[in-house]
Amino acid sequence: MDKPRIAVDCMGGDYAPEEIVKGCLLASKEFDLILYLVGQQERIENILGKNYDKDRLQIVHAEDVVGMGEPPSNVLKKKKSSLYVAGLLLRENLADGLVSAGNTGAVLTVGKFLVGALEGIERPAIGVALPNPKGRTVLIDVGANVDCKPKHLLQFAIIGHTYAKEILGIQNPRVGILSIGEEEGKGNELVRESYILLKKSKLNFLGNAEGRDIYAGTFDVIVCDGFVGNVILKASESLGMAVLQMIKEEVQKSLLAKIGALLMKPALNNFKKKADFAEYGGIPLLGAKKPVIITHGRANAKAIKNAIRVASEFYLQHFNERLTEELRNLSPKEVKI
Amino acid sequence: MDKPRIAVDCMGGDYAPEEIVKGCLLASKEFDLILYLVGQQERIENILGKNYDKDRLQIVHAEDVVGMGEPPSNVLKKKKSSLYVAGLLLRENLADGLVSAGNTGAVLTVGKFLVGALEGIERPAIGVALPNPKGRTVLIDVGANVDCKPKHLLQFAIIGHTYAKEILGIQNPRVGILSIGEEEGKGNELVRESYILLKKSKLNFLGNAEGRDIYAGTFDVIVCDGFVGNVILKASESLGMAVLQMIKEEVQKSLLAKIGALLMKPALNNFKKKADFAEYGGIPLLGAKKPVIITHGRANAKAIKNAIRVASEFYLQHFNERLTEELRNLSPKEVKI
Repeated sequence: MDKPRIAVDCMGGDYAPEEIVKGCLLASKEFDLILYLVGQQERIENILGKNYDKDRLQIVHAEDVVGMGEPPSNVLKKKKSSLYVAGLLLRENLADGLVSAGNTGAVLTVGKFLVGALEGIERPAIGVALPNPKGRTVLIDVGANVDCKPKHLLQFAIIGHTYAKEILGIQNPRVGILSIGEEEGKGNELVRESYILLKKSKLNFLGNAEGRDIYAGTFDVIVCDGFVGNVILKASESLGMAVLQMIKEEVQKSLLAKIGALLMKPALNNFKKKADFAEYGGIPLLGAKKPVIITHGRANAKAIKNAIRVASEFYLQHFNERLTEELRNLSPKEVKI
Repeated sequence: MDKPRIAVDCMGGDYAPEEIVKGCLLASKEFDLILYLVGQQERIENILGKNYDKDRLQIVHAEDVVGMGEPPSNVLKKKKSSLYVAGLLLRENLADGLVSAGNTGAVLTVGKFLVGALEGIERPAIGVALPNPKGRTVLIDVGANVDCKPKHLLQFAIIGHTYAKEILGIQNPRVGILSIGEEEGKGNELVRESYILLKKSKLNFLGNAEGRDIYAGTFDVIVCDGFVGNVILKASESLGMAVLQMIKEEVQKSLLAKIGALLMKPALNNFKKKADFAEYGGIPLLGAKKPVIITHGRANAKAIKNAIRVASEFYLQHFNERLTEELRNLSPKEVKI
């Protein structure tokens, strides 16, 4: 099998281009792949130094940059921006995946409109593998699409199923639709209609999942509209931070507690590593013609390296080929691809 | 001012009637109010014993019970159930508030359809005061209504504003609408349309809030559809539990960490007390003709006592009168009450 070819947007992110390019260097040492470093050639060269492997690290010059605060749609007009050029590499089949720490909305725009959707998918979606005490649960979509229709939620479910099966190695993933009650018929109009469609599919569909199932390990894939998924994801991050800060404040009030916290630190760090899914390789836009990995804007070299690993895994596991098969196999007859 | 008269559904909840009746006894000792203990007379009397204050604790017999697993709408047919009778007391203006640890859906049904909405409110909503490092943020609605319209979200905002101002004591509460981006125009159709309405109101409307704002203390009131609010609330609870369990597992791996956890315990308990908003007095359905307080099914006597306190506070603070005024003062002209 060919080496994965990953396009990296070197100009996007709070620490671009330094940390991005350093992440490419780390990835290139650790994994067998070809990286296209897209961005301002001179700045990238300055960070790479002279002794880098020119076969495995190839600079693709792009003079323009999409700013973190710019309206996402700008990227489609900025055709000389690193992000646009990286997207072009995917569209023209010159690369197998894209990694960017840049303007999230702009990265999504490139994935959805420049790279474009895989056949059978109308709307690519973002799936995250959220941690729980028993393993991971894929929540999809967490922000690529709002005002979805039932057929979109069905497609998200099949994308999520394929993610859980091929990437997380879960056999026969248990799929649920996020609702506000266990029984069929609970939820809003979108959920009730999507439920019918999912039930007719050949997915291992367990019915409604509730908010409490997201972190409980009771489902492997939970499907929702991107609006709902996004607010849950961001609320979760903020709850985590609020809890830590509130505990810190309580701990500060007592010397014993301070000592206790010190003794617990290694255990807490282990936990943090497990929980920090975003730093741990970014989150993928799936169902596009090639996977697009979005990392935190504040991604450092290690996070970029992990995101590159994730992008290449999708390629090496033939994710899109599997997804195309699953769309054919699992869709209910009336929406057969 | 008259004493608050609170109807308590003594037959609803995992530990009914024992814990519920004991909660009434606690409340009656601590607060100056009249309690209507609704349920099976004999069982309630057995728990009360002989020496209770018959002026302040009055039993209202109701022979039937709405089960925790029953379809919520059953309650409207079970006219001799404790929950229905308690609701009747509110509708007939014989009581000023209701507390129930019973079937949540059935409690909501009673609040919405038997007690009914306050004039100017089309859909009563559930507001929760979620903790954050700086104080509390009211998230509303968290499950009473799905498929809302913009005018409903406007009403939720005014209810939430009144809650924050009159009950939490926050002057000029900062109101936001939950969306997936900061700028106007971000979000789904409902959010975009509601934004316009909220902007025209006289609320202290700050614009879009994001998921991360829920636990950050950046807003005092965040408005959302009940579907979205419910999944966030339940996901938050489950995330909290998952985090504790995952930390526990890490701690178990190391003796030092175990000692550390022991030393930190009092601080952690203080934190838990702050965070446990549900145990701390239940969550109110607001915008009904009288407030209805829903507690966890597993509420114990102390939780019931706190919920009774909350119910009487709404009465003592003239919550509904203030809400009626605010509806008049804050609504934009085109939807003036």
